[in-house]
Amino acid sequence: MKERKMKSLIFVAPGKIELIEKPIPKPGPTDALVRITTTTICGTDVHILKGEYPVRPGLTIGHEPVGVIEELGSAVTGYQIGQRVIAGAINPCGQCGSCLEGIQAQCGGKPMGGWRFGNTIDGAQAEFLLVPNAMANLALVPDHLTDEEVLMCPDIMSTGFSGAESGKIKIGDSVAVFAQGPIGLCATAGAKLSGASLIITIDSHENRLKMSRQVGADVTINYREKDPVPTIMELTQGRGVDVAIEALGTEQTFQSCMRVLKPGGTLSSLGVYAKDIQIPLSAFYAGLGDQTLITTLCPGGKERMRRLMNIISSKRLDLKPLVTHRFKLDQILEAYDVFSNQRDGVLKVAIAP
Amino acid sequence: MKERKMKSLIFVAPGKIELIEKPIPKPGPTDALVRITTTTICGTDVHILKGEYPVRPGLTIGHEPVGVIEELGSAVTGYQIGQRVIAGAINPCGQCGSCLEGIQAQCGGKPMGGWRFGNTIDGAQAEFLLVPNAMANLALVPDHLTDEEVLMCPDIMSTGFSGAESGKIKIGDSVAVFAQGPIGLCATAGAKLSGASLIITIDSHENRLKMSRQVGADVTINYREKDPVPTIMELTQGRGVDVAIEALGTEQTFQSCMRVLKPGGTLSSLGVYAKDIQIPLSAFYAGLGDQTLITTLCPGGKERMRRLMNIISSKRLDLKPLVTHRFKLDQILEAYDVFSNQRDGVLKVAIAP
Amino acid sequence: MKERKMKSLIFVAPGKIELIEKPIPKPGPTDALVRITTTTICGTDVHILKGEYPVRPGLTIGHEPVGVIEELGSAVTGYQIGQRVIAGAINPCGQCGSCLEGIQAQCGGKPMGGWRFGNTIDGAQAEFLLVPNAMANLALVPDHLTDEEVLMCPDIMSTGFSGAESGKIKIGDSVAVFAQGPIGLCATAGAKLSGASLIITIDSHENRLKMSRQVGADVTINYREKDPVPTIMELTQGRGVDVAIEALGTEQTFQSCMRVLKPGGTLSSLGVYAKDIQIPLSAFYAGLGDQTLITTLCPGGKERMRRLMNIISSKRLDLKPLVTHRFKLDQILEAYDVFSNQRDGVLKVAIAP
Amino acid sequence: MKERKMKSLIFVAPGKIELIEKPIPKPGPTDALVRITTTTICGTDVHILKGEYPVRPGLTIGHEPVGVIEELGSAVTGYQIGQRVIAGAINPCGQCGSCLEGIQAQCGGKPMGGWRFGNTIDGAQAEFLLVPNAMANLALVPDHLTDEEVLMCPDIMSTGFSGAESGKIKIGDSVAVFAQGPIGLCATAGAKLSGASLIITIDSHENRLKMSRQVGADVTINYREKDPVPTIMELTQGRGVDVAIEALGTEQTFQSCMRVLKPGGTLSSLGVYAKDIQIPLSAFYAGLGDQTLITTLCPGGKERMRRLMNIISSKRLDLKPLVTHRFKLDQILEAYDVFSNQRDGVLKVAIAP
Repeated sequence: MKERKMKSLIFVAPGKIELIEKPIPKPGPTDALVRITTTTICGTDVHILKGEYPVRPGLTIGHEPVGVIEELGSAVTGYQIGQRVIAGAINPCGQCGSCLEGIQAQCGGKPMGGWRFGNTIDGAQAEFLLVPNAMANLALVPDHLTDEEVLMCPDIMSTGFSGAESGKIKIGDSVAVFAQGPIGLCATAGAKLSGASLIITIDSHENRLKMSRQVGADVTINYREKDPVPTIMELTQGRGVDVAIEALGTEQTFQSCMRVLKPGGTLSSLGVYAKDIQIPLSAFYAGLGDQTLITTLCPGGKERMRRLMNIISSKRLDLKPLVTHRFKLDQILEAYDVFSNQRDGVLKVAIAP
Repeated sequence: MKERKMKSLIFVAPGKIELIEKPIPKPGPTDALVRITTTTICGTDVHILKGEYPVRPGLTIGHEPVGVIEELGSAVTGYQIGQRVIAGAINPCGQCGSCLEGIQAQCGGKPMGGWRFGNTIDGAQAEFLLVPNAMANLALVPDHLTDEEVLMCPDIMSTGFSGAESGKIKIGDSVAVFAQGPIGLCATAGAKLSGASLIITIDSHENRLKMSRQVGADVTINYREKDPVPTIMELTQGRGVDVAIEALGTEQTFQSCMRVLKPGGTLSSLGVYAKDIQIPLSAFYAGLGDQTLITTLCPGGKERMRRLMNIISSKRLDLKPLVTHRFKLDQILEAYDVFSNQRDGVLKVAIAP
Repeated sequence: MKERKMKSLIFVAPGKIELIEKPIPKPGPTDALVRITTTTICGTDVHILKGEYPVRPGLTIGHEPVGVIEELGSAVTGYQIGQRVIAGAINPCGQCGSCLEGIQAQCGGKPMGGWRFGNTIDGAQAEFLLVPNAMANLALVPDHLTDEEVLMCPDIMSTGFSGAESGKIKIGDSVAVFAQGPIGLCATAGAKLSGASLIITIDSHENRLKMSRQVGADVTINYREKDPVPTIMELTQGRGVDVAIEALGTEQTFQSCMRVLKPGGTLSSLGVYAKDIQIPLSAFYAGLGDQTLITTLCPGGKERMRRLMNIISSKRLDLKPLVTHRFKLDQILEAYDVFSNQRDGVLKVAIAP
Repeated sequence: MKERKMKSLIFVAPGKIELIEKPIPKPGPTDALVRITTTTICGTDVHILKGEYPVRPGLTIGHEPVGVIEELGSAVTGYQIGQRVIAGAINPCGQCGSCLEGIQAQCGGKPMGGWRFGNTIDGAQAEFLLVPNAMANLALVPDHLTDEEVLMCPDIMSTGFSGAESGKIKIGDSVAVFAQGPIGLCATAGAKLSGASLIITIDSHENRLKMSRQVGADVTINYREKDPVPTIMELTQGRGVDVAIEALGTEQTFQSCMRVLKPGGTLSSLGVYAKDIQIPLSAFYAGLGDQTLITTLCPGGKERMRRLMNIISSKRLDLKPLVTHRFKLDQILEAYDVFSNQRDGVLKVAIAP
């Protein structure tokens, strides 16, 4: 019998990705096979393409799946073929020490252990995706939500929101969010939903700052026009912000976060740093004592996905405007070109078969 | 009328301190004047002496007072002259935004705002000490405790314990404490009291490692004999520790903490860094995501002092052995010499009039 | 010299209050005298009037002051006569064990110790109010906010919000709020600001349910038309709510909260129970284990007030519509009649000299 | 082929249990079959025997297994036949919404959903036990620990410790533990390990109070000799305790907990209430506001078991003295008689094949 094949976007070598055909995988007892109906490209995928984050050649990239259950492993119960689902970018097993302790993104006790799609196993930029630990990871999409409405849940929304959550934002807090790419925008939305009463966002692209005001920013700063640090100190009457969120991954934004943070404040870091950076502790020194720096890897698991979809359903937040461009899977190289070079005001792309 | 005078140890210039006479201050309405019966020298005082931490020339140094109430401000109620008291190294006012928010060490919203003694106002290495916001700061010493038994409460014990507390140590956690000077030893004791089931401590002085085992360490590592990082990874079966405590303030110990920290773990930093240090983020990268770095300034206030004295009263911990040397106030320059050069296995000195 | 007098509403005996003249008090060293420009009546004041909550005859009632600083105690710094201020219903001293531990409403370690105005000392329904511990309690009102815009901050908003905060509402949570009087409405607003994605509110007055939808409810239930318990279970797909908030103080609403609470959920209780009520533990039994019941007394202090005013300034919430009726201080008995009998759709009244 | 049989203690009807033969079950894909080498009887089993907690007739009772892996399901990886293991009384699946949210005892979103052994599926008082979700639940027993040393981990130690943990005991707290049966004793030990500086325990059996002092109590009160409430208030200088733990399940102990709790304190309830009880809210009223009541169901999962065994390994606590009586499985009815009637100073029994 002829093996069935599917299109897959694979990493070949730094700077080179390719759309090839691969066998459609067979689910093991606890897996599910999902037919991808919509997916997207993440900044991390661009790091992979550039060779800045290493994966093995031949791996299918992508970790943001929306699709339909095609086949279920023999031990998977509670699901039916044909159900529409999403799975988080991170796939906790739910059964290891880290998961049972509540640190699901570090599944297996290994750094980024729960990040498997397009990292250690084949990912979502393909016609089909094998989801491990299906029962912990497949979240049913309510009928009234479209693919594009939930496309941000698996990574962007989960990560951005977790930046706000890890910062333990309280009602009435002041918050600064450095960088307003898709994750930064979701951090801004998360800060708004967490009760911050003053949200200041910083970027240099006017379209991003405009979107930022739409999702929750009270004040936006274009850092090409104004120095963010003194501006923020003035906006907070010299107090500094209660929470600073770093959503880019550069030494400069990291240090700016530290400089605007009040004594006793929290720096919530979401950026993936492409190279080692040097943090002069003088930055810490300024507020020596009682500061917290917390890094967060995108939380996954079906419960997280359910909650994020609840937010979308409740109309408290509309992330559809983040999808600025649409492509067929056959055009995915073009999609990478637009996305990685930030052409035409792109924020996120949607890719469908 | 002739002004009454008192002996005071003042900072003169980098490398130079002097025992002089100063007028005994008069308490304002919310202050108390305390006659010092026992005090001590802190590592931070040595930083001040060396000019590594700047204070104004003429300032009386020292922030660890045990004494007797000599005089009370007109608005101070609930205390009587003659009561034996301690006050924390940090003096929260209890009434500013930071204090009301629970970040008392950052009183006034300023970095280290609550640290006043021997920093912004005259300190405890003198015959008398003016305590501001007396009602928030004076803690009565129970009769059954001696001066030396409570001498570690104002700073060393409060700071060391807070290292364990900020680390949010849970029952059954594994903990590594880098450096076993007086604060590191108290962090070790705090980790033990917090339910850690494996405490690994690191230092190079055998007398400190021995004391470390006395106050709670399960395993001690002399870093001159064994590389701590691989040793700790082996002791934790490759898992890394749940909590790492830095109690020295060097780039190397900071980085070692990061290297032995499990994904999702917490680094609790107590060290006062004498100069800017560079932290390559590669150290973070190893456990990218879900790690917390928290710095803690010694918590003060009379409630904190009451709780620490309760621990001493309960006999769960005996810190008297930390007092290895005793001096008269007149011999305080000699005390500084012994303490700052770590002569004769000194841990802490007691200084009495 | 003739003693200056002021009008004061005093409790005389159960069922009897009276507007009399009293001497204007003189501030002690840490007090401030505030000239009241706007105040209001609370449900608790009605409990006092009815004799359900005992206070001493002759006491001036009221705990929700907006006004102008008239005179400052000798030890009060950082304020000027003529500044417009509010003070919370609860007045923490900031300096006792409870305050320093962060339980400010229980100031002095006594139940409701921080609640002084109209409870243990003369209150705000008068021409002047003496504010103890002024430095911890006077919060400056920004010029752009009117008296009525900040009138809910001292109690209603602080208490209602704390119901949401104590419930530890997370982004995506489902929340039920039982009773939509002024405090329940603020709890609803607080739940919305905390990121709840489904807020269900219950009351029998259509005007309150309408206001409830305005401040954040997604679904409202008129319990005269529909049984709330099965309705809520259906709305949550049988799951129960993550957080239930009780804002009335009756056995029935308390038990309903327990019946709709998911295993592992939190019941946040704001109601002041007028008499002992019996709670059959069978209600607990249904979700035996891992449930939390938390009661909250209105948090006060100037930092809390500052944060609440920030929310008002940010336009995230407009509580002015809660002020449905206005009276002069001379008409206060009429105001009590309207408010305590819930005439004319009254929610809150504003009382000005 | 002849079906293999095993001895099992089953519930027959209220007041009647029986040791019968049952087929040895076959593990499904995610199960493991464990040969029981040691088990014990819990107070909850006695409730079942008396018909106070209903289970279906024919069910094998018991939820505290120590044993050896006999057979593994086809999808179970990471284990080998012959390994010595324990499993918690509660068996989280790790994959449902409740588990992924961290409320593992409420697995499946159902009250006590994670409690399966001897409740909804056959239990541990048998020759063999089928463990569902084996990968989340089987914890390897280190070679140096005996069966009896880890016999308390599955329930008694996990439950008792969680009483201390849920109470969020801090270093220097005062704690009262009402009832010193096996779970109360473990709560006392947990309070000690959490840093409490004053632990007061209450019971009427002198042997239990003696054991209580051994595991951590500073003061014991025999309630037949002394009224606990005034005694505790005096011991805390009128302050009340920071945390009260209820470990019996009667109206009286519950109310006593409330009466000795300080304003702002936490009542951690472990008792399983055999019938509805009435809690007059006047008890709450005493400390109206800022109190927390939390109920905890025994946390399970292999990570919890690993941590508890770490405590045993570290010698911080020796629970072997709790095993006062030993029986063969064939003598289990006699064991029930001794245990349920609290004969001969029994605390816990060990039952081996």
